[in-house]
Amino acid sequence: MRSALTEESRVHQPASFSTWFAAARERSGLQVGRVELDGLRDWDRDPRTGTLRHRSGGFFAVGGLDVRFPSGPVPHWQQPIIHQPEAGILGLLAREFGGVLHFLMQAKAEPGNRNHLQLSPTVQATRSNYLRLHKGRAVPYLRYFQERSRHHVLADVLQSEQGAWFFRKRNRNIVLEVTEDIVAGEDFRWMTLGQIYRQLEAEDIVNMDTRTTLSCLPLAGAGGVPESGDGFPCALVRSCAGNPGAAHSMDELLSWITEHRAQDHLTTGPVPLGDMSDWRSSPERISHASGRFFSVIGVNVSAGTREVGGWSQPMIEPHGTGLIAVLVKEIDGVLHALMRASVEPGYVAGVELSPTVQCVPESYEVLPGAARPRFLDEVLSARPEQIRFSCLLSEEGGRFHHALNRYLVVEADGDAGFLEDPDHRWLTLHQISTLLRHSHYLNVQARSLVACLHSLLAPRTR
Amino acid sequence: MRSALTEESRVHQPASFSTWFAAARERSGLQVGRVELDGLRDWDRDPRTGTLRHRSGGFFAVGGLDVRFPSGPVPHWQQPIIHQPEAGILGLLAREFGGVLHFLMQAKAEPGNRNHLQLSPTVQATRSNYLRLHKGRAVPYLRYFQERSRHHVLADVLQSEQGAWFFRKRNRNIVLEVTEDIVAGEDFRWMTLGQIYRQLEAEDIVNMDTRTTLSCLPLAGAGGVPESGDGFPCALVRSCAGNPGAAHSMDELLSWITEHRAQDHLTTGPVPLGDMSDWRSSPERISHASGRFFSVIGVNVSAGTREVGGWSQPMIEPHGTGLIAVLVKEIDGVLHALMRASVEPGYVAGVELSPTVQCVPESYEVLPGAARPRFLDEVLSARPEQIRFSCLLSEEGGRFHHALNRYLVVEADGDAGFLEDPDHRWLTLHQISTLLRHSHYLNVQARSLVACLHSLLAPRTR
Repeated sequence: MRSALTEESRVHQPASFSTWFAAARERSGLQVGRVELDGLRDWDRDPRTGTLRHRSGGFFAVGGLDVRFPSGPVPHWQQPIIHQPEAGILGLLAREFGGVLHFLMQAKAEPGNRNHLQLSPTVQATRSNYLRLHKGRAVPYLRYFQERSRHHVLADVLQSEQGAWFFRKRNRNIVLEVTEDIVAGEDFRWMTLGQIYRQLEAEDIVNMDTRTTLSCLPLAGAGGVPESGDGFPCALVRSCAGNPGAAHSMDELLSWITEHRAQDHLTTGPVPLGDMSDWRSSPERISHASGRFFSVIGVNVSAGTREVGGWSQPMIEPHGTGLIAVLVKEIDGVLHALMRASVEPGYVAGVELSPTVQCVPESYEVLPGAARPRFLDEVLSARPEQIRFSCLLSEEGGRFHHALNRYLVVEADGDAGFLEDPDHRWLTLHQISTLLRHSHYLNVQARSLVACLHSLLAPRTR
Repeated sequence: MRSALTEESRVHQPASFSTWFAAARERSGLQVGRVELDGLRDWDRDPRTGTLRHRSGGFFAVGGLDVRFPSGPVPHWQQPIIHQPEAGILGLLAREFGGVLHFLMQAKAEPGNRNHLQLSPTVQATRSNYLRLHKGRAVPYLRYFQERSRHHVLADVLQSEQGAWFFRKRNRNIVLEVTEDIVAGEDFRWMTLGQIYRQLEAEDIVNMDTRTTLSCLPLAGAGGVPESGDGFPCALVRSCAGNPGAAHSMDELLSWITEHRAQDHLTTGPVPLGDMSDWRSSPERISHASGRFFSVIGVNVSAGTREVGGWSQPMIEPHGTGLIAVLVKEIDGVLHALMRASVEPGYVAGVELSPTVQCVPESYEVLPGAARPRFLDEVLSARPEQIRFSCLLSEEGGRFHHALNRYLVVEADGDAGFLEDPDHRWLTLHQISTLLRHSHYLNVQARSLVACLHSLLAPRTR
């Protein structure tokens, strides 16, 4: 908590954040160009299923998926999906300087980011990366996470990623506190939580992997902020602190999640990538006939500071900017977030908690009316004073091409009880943090919003 | 805890347990006969894959599975497996009588039980059962679990079942406390935990579904047993009570589980039931060429008190009696259980915690030496005074035919630290109960042993 409230680090850094970040962008020299799907170097199509695979057998594959969801607004569809069965590492190193935890952040370029360079965790590596299937450079700082018993583990949990685009992908989110001296390489920088949170307010700087890793870090202690008192900041501190006053007990919440997991039956099976109903293939892309949702495209990448100098890969290119919003409300003096129980085709264990609203609004032009999220209009029409956080952020730039979402924290009008329905429940941030010690409770969009909510603890944003 | 310590109920019951149970056995009149697999009424074989399916599309199916586990002692094998994607309900009703919680137990016959009748939870129903796909009688007391918000939920969690025989099956374990009057039907009986635990010492009476449901019930309060003091009973009470003194923190244990889940890669895919390498089909059975492991057989069942009068179904028939043992040890005055992190083909989310030893000893005659469990010889050679619990119990009699395991709780010799290795860790019972609030941490054999360990709290067994 003290780190969250500290925006000026006493660690000597040779340059300001913006100077350092601009220099890293200069060095990265990432070049990204489009290429036909059959022209991807080192990628083959399975002659029977059409699945796109890397010749090494590693990294990831793009195949077709048949989805049946009888109780959903669209009971049956087919779609391309990324298969990446190996758990990668999203690792963040922490170290105390002058009594304040600092985190070793990386300026890392990814081909799918509009601006290429973003602020990443210390290590962000697939298993194929760190086993060096690409025969490239070693991943810096990886050894700390491989010898983690020597250090203090603050968080270590497998979490899902986009269940609409990844089939059962999980990444290991680790935060490790070290006490020994570590030299920060030129693309790395020690930052307090408060400094990272400040960058989270800036458009498209803090990447998804940083957001999910930070969300799994429990915020301990009150850090000098008064827990009593009125207004949004105090209600937020009380929400994080685990005081009594939650609208529902953990037993009630766990039972509600179990009920949804037992009843919301979504089943999937493979389908050849070339035979998917409603999808069209051209040399450049695989797209939905409606023009909505997303396409599979191919890119050529050449890079300066990456483990390898250049490569080709398929990517998912979403159509339209998404909206990811959580309604929040003070209930008996404690801030609560309205979470939704929902299922996506790629989840490992069924229903997870997602934000109040998570969608690409223009997709509903071609979907049944019942698919439109209940609270979408409420979020779209929020008055400025209701909006506590608003920022355009990217999803993972290693797989998704220009996948931008507007993340919003909106104070809800009206009666808290009336806003609940079978799919929505109010949770405190402490309850969310308790769930985040375990896998498969909060989806990646919800975890991003948890980081955004925590960022509101920092003084500048209040 | 008070219920665990109460072996004499003040609830008026017209007959003793054994008289009631004998009368229920008389009424059930279950008849089970062998039948050829192609002669199973209402079951078809898929012409392409050979999968055995119920004509309704419900209940379950038996298909072939290809398993790859590169880091295991057997890196590749094929086997039949049961597909039962719907989550069933294992529901236990609780009610306070005279200040002591009682549980509504059922005397229920299942075709796979050697003795047919066993002590079951109040409700034990697949989704196909309770949706009445068999057009039979309604499931008694089911409505309490369907309207659970009117009652007090003591536990409600999806848990895995035998990952060697079921593909991603999960059952919902619910314990519900009601305050209204409930009439116990003639096959039902209110019992205290202490009374149920006493039956758990008797060979083959308390069924698997009761054991797993009870394991998910947190034991609260000390119930009058002194927490200070020497010896096994006091160390057991301290282990349940959540006092300090655990050998590992929860953060360390969660990180250890995450490490195994990230690294122990087991992948599966479908294979036609008739084309499995090393398996032979005859009209009566599908068996492994070695004669070990298990067979798929067919049975005809006629019944008195079941929802339907008679049916046919395939079953899994294991070859040999299994051994399921946990080593326990007092560490700094608190009893700890040595749990193993391991993976089975049917698990939903990867590695779960299993007992110290879980095997059919004679299977190792045809398996590589590295497959033999580290602690098997230690358990087989335990001296009588080391053995705190020993009982022959059945696995689920609705799918498995005469699946018997000897369940053992054995006090370990030697240094606690020396008995740990990368796959084994010491946990307190309170830590295990904390994990049991969530899905996929403890496998069904480990959950059975948790119920056995809790039964040692009851006075008679000390």
